[in-house]
Amino acid sequence: MKKYAVIVAGGSGQRMGTSEPKQFLELAGKPVLLHTLDCFLGTYTDLQIILVLPAAFQEQGSALIQSLPAADRIQITVGGETRFHSVQNGLQLVTEPSVIWVHDAVRCLVSSELIQACYEQALRKGSAIPAVAATDSIRIQTGETHQVADRKQVRIIQTPQTFLSNILLPAFKQSYREDFTDEATVVEAMGQPVFLIEGSYDNIKITRPVDLLIATSILAAKQSKEA
Amino acid sequence: MKKYAVIVAGGSGQRMGTSEPKQFLELAGKPVLLHTLDCFLGTYTDLQIILVLPAAFQEQGSALIQSLPAADRIQITVGGETRFHSVQNGLQLVTEPSVIWVHDAVRCLVSSELIQACYEQALRKGSAIPAVAATDSIRIQTGETHQVADRKQVRIIQTPQTFLSNILLPAFKQSYREDFTDEATVVEAMGQPVFLIEGSYDNIKITRPVDLLIATSILAAKQSKEA
Repeated sequence: MKKYAVIVAGGSGQRMGTSEPKQFLELAGKPVLLHTLDCFLGTYTDLQIILVLPAAFQEQGSALIQSLPAADRIQITVGGETRFHSVQNGLQLVTEPSVIWVHDAVRCLVSSELIQACYEQALRKGSAIPAVAATDSIRIQTGETHQVADRKQVRIIQTPQTFLSNILLPAFKQSYREDFTDEATVVEAMGQPVFLIEGSYDNIKITRPVDLLIATSILAAKQSKEA
Repeated sequence: MKKYAVIVAGGSGQRMGTSEPKQFLELAGKPVLLHTLDCFLGTYTDLQIILVLPAAFQEQGSALIQSLPAADRIQITVGGETRFHSVQNGLQLVTEPSVIWVHDAVRCLVSSELIQACYEQALRKGSAIPAVAATDSIRIQTGETHQVADRKQVRIIQTPQTFLSNILLPAFKQSYREDFTDEATVVEAMGQPVFLIEGSYDNIKITRPVDLLIATSILAAKQSKEA
């Protein structure tokens, strides 16, 4: 079974208040995106990466990956109007039956353990959607009213959302809908169930400036644990 | 109107993997708990603190607050079996009509702005429950099945949960129920609505070792913004 990781870098840096999109910002000596790519490339030597970048950042992306020893395992394609369209573009490069991870480029602290666990479960069940328990109380607001959710039932969803290609590819043939907020919702819209897997609290998304500092801290904590 | 902040420190350090409970761990040169106390004490000079500590940490708490210039504005009382019982114990020291903030001791990055905003709204509406929008997809799991929640409707709840005493004190005369997971749920059980207010992503809880590093990063980012 082939292995493809579709790495989606949609951001243009607006939320960061920087001109540089967040995937190119530096974290512990290298761009956020390189942390993500290195983790996937290092986990499986037979894994191919499909990197989806906004049109304006194709060149910057190419320059970045040329420095990598595994550059020949990475293809770059252009992003679309929404995340759905970006992933749809990326999936056009999948040509064989495979396991496909779809991952946020800015979740740069993803671990090999999680990538492997997702692979194993996708083989067995068809999908693996990383999720962690909520650590805070959650309320669901509808208009002016809101009510507390049972915290034991709340799952916070992460990526890589991982699927067998025979499930994910047909799902992305559907027409776009506004409620397609991640890959799991696209697959469910086809009537397919998706299966959760334990994610990691370290697997954060870099969206605000402080997230870079937080990621630095998490990296330092991981390294001191390994030492 | 009097002002009371009930600061609840329930933790015994088990989740941190330390023998020291997390409220006494050091952050940027002083214990976590002192950050919290200093913020409340500094926001209003006429604010009284009721500090609720587990029985085993009463002495350590006393020693800590003796060093403070505002030590005479702090009373210490003993925690109970659950958070509900701890808050209930604390509220017995409220003797006059007041605005009452109930706050997690380990949310040590709370800001004066949030404390003030909660006060103003509690005066107008009777309550102020800080909440922030979810930045990740959320699913609600029931048994084996789960379904995506509308992310726009999901609110992550924080503290200080703030109330007029004539709402909070009667609510805590109720008998304990398992679904009393925070003060808002206790007040709602009396048939009173509670009102949300915009919280802050910086207002994190220190529960895992990495949270201390994250808090250090957030403090550094705040200071560089102020400089």
